[in-house]
Amino acid sequence: MAQINVGIIGFGTVGAGTVELLLKNAEIIAARVGAPVVIRKIADLDIDSDRGIVVDPELLTTDAMEVIDDPTIDVIVELVGGLDKAREFMLLAMEKGKHVVTANKALLAEYGRDIYDSARKEGVHLEFEASVGGGIPILGSLEGGLAANHIQAMVGILNGTSNYILTRMTREGLAYEKAVEEAVRLGFAEEPPTLDVNGTDAAHKLAILLSVAIGAPMDFQSLYREGIEALSPEDIQLAGDFGYHIKLLAIARLGNGWVEARVHPAMIPKNHILANVNEAYNAIYLEGDFVGPNLFYGLGAGRRPTGSAVVSDIMDIARKILQGVKGPGHWIGQDEQSSRHITVRPMDQLRSIYYFRFSALDQPGVLSKISGILGENEISVSSVIQKGRKTSGAVPVVMITHEALERNVFRAISRIDELDIVTDKTVIIRVEEAFPNGDV
Amino acid sequence: MAQINVGIIGFGTVGAGTVELLLKNAEIIAARVGAPVVIRKIADLDIDSDRGIVVDPELLTTDAMEVIDDPTIDVIVELVGGLDKAREFMLLAMEKGKHVVTANKALLAEYGRDIYDSARKEGVHLEFEASVGGGIPILGSLEGGLAANHIQAMVGILNGTSNYILTRMTREGLAYEKAVEEAVRLGFAEEPPTLDVNGTDAAHKLAILLSVAIGAPMDFQSLYREGIEALSPEDIQLAGDFGYHIKLLAIARLGNGWVEARVHPAMIPKNHILANVNEAYNAIYLEGDFVGPNLFYGLGAGRRPTGSAVVSDIMDIARKILQGVKGPGHWIGQDEQSSRHITVRPMDQLRSIYYFRFSALDQPGVLSKISGILGENEISVSSVIQKGRKTSGAVPVVMITHEALERNVFRAISRIDELDIVTDKTVIIRVEEAFPNGDV
Repeated sequence: MAQINVGIIGFGTVGAGTVELLLKNAEIIAARVGAPVVIRKIADLDIDSDRGIVVDPELLTTDAMEVIDDPTIDVIVELVGGLDKAREFMLLAMEKGKHVVTANKALLAEYGRDIYDSARKEGVHLEFEASVGGGIPILGSLEGGLAANHIQAMVGILNGTSNYILTRMTREGLAYEKAVEEAVRLGFAEEPPTLDVNGTDAAHKLAILLSVAIGAPMDFQSLYREGIEALSPEDIQLAGDFGYHIKLLAIARLGNGWVEARVHPAMIPKNHILANVNEAYNAIYLEGDFVGPNLFYGLGAGRRPTGSAVVSDIMDIARKILQGVKGPGHWIGQDEQSSRHITVRPMDQLRSIYYFRFSALDQPGVLSKISGILGENEISVSSVIQKGRKTSGAVPVVMITHEALERNVFRAISRIDELDIVTDKTVIIRVEEAFPNGDV
Repeated sequence: MAQINVGIIGFGTVGAGTVELLLKNAEIIAARVGAPVVIRKIADLDIDSDRGIVVDPELLTTDAMEVIDDPTIDVIVELVGGLDKAREFMLLAMEKGKHVVTANKALLAEYGRDIYDSARKEGVHLEFEASVGGGIPILGSLEGGLAANHIQAMVGILNGTSNYILTRMTREGLAYEKAVEEAVRLGFAEEPPTLDVNGTDAAHKLAILLSVAIGAPMDFQSLYREGIEALSPEDIQLAGDFGYHIKLLAIARLGNGWVEARVHPAMIPKNHILANVNEAYNAIYLEGDFVGPNLFYGLGAGRRPTGSAVVSDIMDIARKILQGVKGPGHWIGQDEQSSRHITVRPMDQLRSIYYFRFSALDQPGVLSKISGILGENEISVSSVIQKGRKTSGAVPVVMITHEALERNVFRAISRIDELDIVTDKTVIIRVEEAFPNGDV
C-alpha cells in the first residue's frame, strides 16, 4: 500500500502540534487520505527539550538539509518561522520536487511572489492554511466553497494577542501597558509583542487573504498599518458610550481594478457579530457578490489549532499525490494577466466615519472654533459629547462624524491641533458603521 | 481548449441563482477552473416564467431526460427538490457516468445511502455543499481544512425561517402565530412552513453534517426532533430574565462509537456567539479535538447564497475532471467498516439542564410538593422564580435545574402534571449552558 512521507523542519510550538496530531489521529488521517501519512524526519536546532510527545529519537536531526535531501520524503513542512532561512529551505525543497506546507505568514506576505512562482515552476503543491487564522479553514473556503464569488470585502480580527489585550482593556478598564503585562504573564503574548500590537502580523495575514481572493501576490508594503499601542481606556469607554467596541481590524474592500487594504484600530457597533469576538479568538467576516456576508471564527494561534491546519494541508496534498494531481493547488498567479491591473488605493482617499477626542480648554467658543475648521474641510458631525470640567481646566470634547475623506480629516485635525485652546494631540479613531460592498 | 458542460434540472429559486451566477461570473469561474464552464441545458416544467435572467431559449426544455441523456454534459445539477423524482434523476444521471451536484437535503438525509453508494459504484463526483447552511462552506471545511480532526460536537442554527420567527418573537414579544404571519408576508417562510418550524428541515441538515463528520450515512429517522410551534412569548421573556436566548438548535455530540443527535428549541447564554445569530442567518458551531471551537456564519437560504454553493461545487468537480481525478470526492462510506459501529444514543439517556414553567395554584405548599417530586427523581434546582399572583389564581413557577437525566425529568414532570394544584401542562425547555466535548 502506498504511504505518504512527511519531513518537518522546525519543532517549536506548531511543529509539536503537527507531530502530536499526526501521531494521535493517524487512524482517521489514513482512512480519510486513503493511505498512511508517516513522519520520516524532524529537524530542529533543539532536539532535546521535552515537548510532551513520544517521538522515535531516530527521527530527530539538527540538520534541516537531512530532511530536504531525503529522497523518500514527499511533503516538507516548514515551521522554522522568520524570513531568510525559511525561504531558503522552502525554495530548496521545491527545487527537489517536494511539496511544501507552511505556516509562515511573514515569509508569504513579504516574499510570496518568489515562493508561488517557484511552486508553479516546479509543479509542486504549496499550502499555507495555518498562516491565517490558525485553525480556521478560511483559505480553503476562499478557494473552495466560496470560489464562484467576487469577494467584495473582508474584515478580520487576525491577531489574537492584540484582541486579548483589547478585551482586557474593554472589560476591566485596564491601561494598555497593564493589559500587555497580563497578556505576557498568561502566555497570550511574547515579550515584547511588537509585531502583534503594531499591526504588522495582521497586515501579513491580510496580504495573504488578499492574494488568495484576488489570485495574485499582494504587495505587503502597500498595506496601511497602525497598531493599538496608543489606545487609552478613556477612548474605549467613550466608544462604549457611543455604542461601539474597539477592535484591531484588517479591512479590505475590493472593486473593479482596485483594492483598499488597511490595518488599524476601529470602532464597530456592539451588536455586529465581529464586535463579540473576544479574548484570543480570531474571525474573518467577508462579503461575496453571491454568497453575501459570511463569518469564520476560531482560535487564531496555539499548538493544537495551528497543528490542525498544517495537518489538514498535508492531507490535502497527500490525496492529490495519490490522485496524480500536479501542483500548485491554488490559483495565485494563475490569473496574473488580469490581476496585474489591480492597484491599491492611497489611504488619503479613504472615506470613513471618524471619532475625534479633542483635549480643549474649558472656554466659551471652543466648540465653535473646532466645528468651524471641520466644516471648512467638508467634515460634518453626527454626534458630540462634551464631558464635565476636569480639575486641570482641560475638557475632552468627543465627536463622531458623518462619512468624510481621510485627507480632509488629517488636514483639519492638524489645523485644530495648532489652536491655542487645544492642549493635546487629538485622538482619531476610524469608525466602521457597516461593511458595505466594495463597488458602488 | 477543454470546456466543462453543465445541465441543470430545476429552474426554481436556486436554479435561477445558479444560472445567474454561472453567466455573470463566467470570467473568474473559467480562470479559477482552468476552462470555461458552460450551461448546455436547463429543464423545468415551467420554462416561461421570467426569472430576471437572459437565457438562450434554445437551452430550455421541459423534459429532464433531455438533460440526463445529453452525451455532451459532464455535470448534472439536481435542483428539483422533493424525494422520488429527484432520486430517480440523480441515480439515472450517475448511471450514465454524469457527475452530480445537488442542494436536496431531504433526499440526502432520507436516501443518502443509495445516493452515496451509487456515486461510489459509478466513480462519479457527488457534491452537496448547498444542502446545509446555504452559501456557508461548512461541508467543504469538514472534508478540507478541518479534516485532521475528530469532530466532537456540532451545534447549528440550520433553519433560517424558524430563526427569523424566533428573532421577531424575542425582539418584539410577538406571539408565535403573529411572527409566522410576518415571516410569510416578508418572504422568509412559505405558507404553511411546517417542515421549517417542526424541526424536520434542521434534522435533515444535521443528518448530512453528521454523515460528513463521521464518514458514514446517518440514519435520519434516528434523530430526535421537536419544533418551535409551542413556544410562547412568555417563555422567551423568562429565558431573557435568566440570561438566555431561545434558538432552534441542531445538536450533535460525537464520542467513541456513539453519537448524540437532536433538534429542539434550547436556551443558550446571551453572550454565546450562537445566541447572537439572528434574522434568517444560519450558523454552525463545532469543536474538533485539535482545532477547538470554530464557528461558520452566513445566509442559510436564498437564490444567490445557495447559487454560490452550487456553482462552487460545479467548479470543484470541473477542476477534478480536468485533473483526471475519479469520484466521489468525499469520504462518506469510505470508512464504512469502523463507522458501522456508531450508535445513536437514546434520547432518554440525555443529560441536560432544564427550564420548567409550572402553572400552579397560588396555595401554600405548592413549591414544596413540586420540589419534592423533582428531588425524588434526582433533579436538583439551581434557580427559581415565582411570579406575582395572577387574577385567575394560577401563578407561573419557573425553575432552572442542574444537569439531570432526561428520563428522570419526563417521569417527574408527568407526575407533577397530575397534581391537583397544577392547572396546565408544564413547559419544558432544554438549556445548553456550555458546549462541552463529546467524550468525557
